[in-house]
Amino acid sequence: MDQAWTAESYLQTYGDQVTAYLEGLFDPNAHPTTLFQAMRYSLLAGGKRLRPVLCLAVGRACGIAETELMPVAAALELLHCYSLIHDDLPCMDDDDLRRGKPTNHRVFGEAAALLAGDALLTYAFEQLAKPLPIPADRQIRMIRALSSAAGCYGMVAGQMADIEAERSSGSMRDLEFIHMHKTARLIEASVELGGLYAGLPEPSLQALKAFGLTIGLVFQMVDDVLDVTATTEQLGKQAGSDERLGKLTYPKFLGLEATQERIEISLNRALAHLDASGVDSSLLASIARFIVVRDK
Amino acid sequence: MDQAWTAESYLQTYGDQVTAYLEGLFDPNAHPTTLFQAMRYSLLAGGKRLRPVLCLAVGRACGIAETELMPVAAALELLHCYSLIHDDLPCMDDDDLRRGKPTNHRVFGEAAALLAGDALLTYAFEQLAKPLPIPADRQIRMIRALSSAAGCYGMVAGQMADIEAERSSGSMRDLEFIHMHKTARLIEASVELGGLYAGLPEPSLQALKAFGLTIGLVFQMVDDVLDVTATTEQLGKQAGSDERLGKLTYPKFLGLEATQERIEISLNRALAHLDASGVDSSLLASIARFIVVRDK
Repeated sequence: MDQAWTAESYLQTYGDQVTAYLEGLFDPNAHPTTLFQAMRYSLLAGGKRLRPVLCLAVGRACGIAETELMPVAAALELLHCYSLIHDDLPCMDDDDLRRGKPTNHRVFGEAAALLAGDALLTYAFEQLAKPLPIPADRQIRMIRALSSAAGCYGMVAGQMADIEAERSSGSMRDLEFIHMHKTARLIEASVELGGLYAGLPEPSLQALKAFGLTIGLVFQMVDDVLDVTATTEQLGKQAGSDERLGKLTYPKFLGLEATQERIEISLNRALAHLDASGVDSSLLASIARFIVVRDK
Repeated sequence: MDQAWTAESYLQTYGDQVTAYLEGLFDPNAHPTTLFQAMRYSLLAGGKRLRPVLCLAVGRACGIAETELMPVAAALELLHCYSLIHDDLPCMDDDDLRRGKPTNHRVFGEAAALLAGDALLTYAFEQLAKPLPIPADRQIRMIRALSSAAGCYGMVAGQMADIEAERSSGSMRDLEFIHMHKTARLIEASVELGGLYAGLPEPSLQALKAFGLTIGLVFQMVDDVLDVTATTEQLGKQAGSDERLGKLTYPKFLGLEATQERIEISLNRALAHLDASGVDSSLLASIARFIVVRDK
């Protein structure tokens, strides 16, 4: 019955379904229209949908249908999308291009972009608090996992450290803090939410979280490499912007070759965690490998 | 046993306890320190603590001790505080003064202020998702109530409409939309969270919500009046800034006298809802009246 998914075909198929779900989430004519247009502009501007698709793939590995898990997966993309809008603002990275289009504030102005980000962040939690057919205490754990990954001990801490590092020389330890918090924690949470929804036993859940965190680190290392090696057209955002902004990156510290070695080592570590989790691993392993070979 | 509280003494006593609770919430030396310092700066800059204290007063009226309800009440102040930081940013109201002190971005810069706001918003939900001694389905309803009041159908919608109205002539209908969403929905949620925690029966809860929404509208009308009649020193923020920014306000539409009449009518409507709720009303009625006579 089950189709033999590759990472590419699964990301394509369910990435599109995530987009379709997000498309139906907000009425474009709701008042004030500028707010809803700004929210929808960034939400529907494309992107790999890696975080929600990872959540769906964990669900599939645990026997949960994608359609059932979709509301949860969508919350991850809402949260990710808010972070991109705020990161692109002039007071942050001041980017003009994202996913191949002008950034939110370039189209709607700074005030609307700020508020669209605030609204998407808030709605991620509203989304996770909608009625779900699982025990309520598990649902609360999901909300706690997402807020913890996203907040002052997670993604926001990583963003702050990332901005501060631009003004200093920075150490390898700073770099590891930034990657862990700015990127890896939310990817860990994407995997965790799928596992929590499925009610995985604690040891499996912990192994799966370790898998998620490690592929999150891999994702950001590959991102660092692509910023050097890929074109603006491939990336859909300005290539070379890490260097322009003086960001701390792995290639800057280690050079490209040693970074590639580190990526391979981390990928293998992630796959070992995945094996230890005991869940059906073939699709998840394939997505992990795809993260390394992707070109955008 | 019970002390006869006035609105003033209750706000003073439990406002201080809210502050003490918030003081212990974040380690000022957590990394990155700029983020935590910026969060704590605004969180501990004073303020009436009206929203958390309203929540505590509802709890008291339903037999819930303030110490037990404090973690929930604190979430309301975290959320309110985020909204003040973002509202004050240059791309929004561009304010220099808040609660008698320089605004967050004037002290920490725009990037840190933006991120401190994001972190406080996120933490409001983390706070509400911490273990509580009530049924988990009720806790989820609390999270849903807060996110709904704060997001794109609540406070953020009000902020967007408020900003947009600066550039247009605006109607009485616009004004009512702004006041309802920007201010009243969160004050309604403050009351609702106390009622949900206490497990009030649905009709009581609905009446109490109507009370909360109406005193929220009263609060904002009084705010409009104070912006005209009070001094910058009294307010702790720039007096007359509504007019400077071209904001839609009740005095602008109706003049001061008719606005005062409207405030009285709304206050009486709120007290009728409170009576209908069937909860012990004396302290809550006293707080509602205090909202009208306050001078800041």
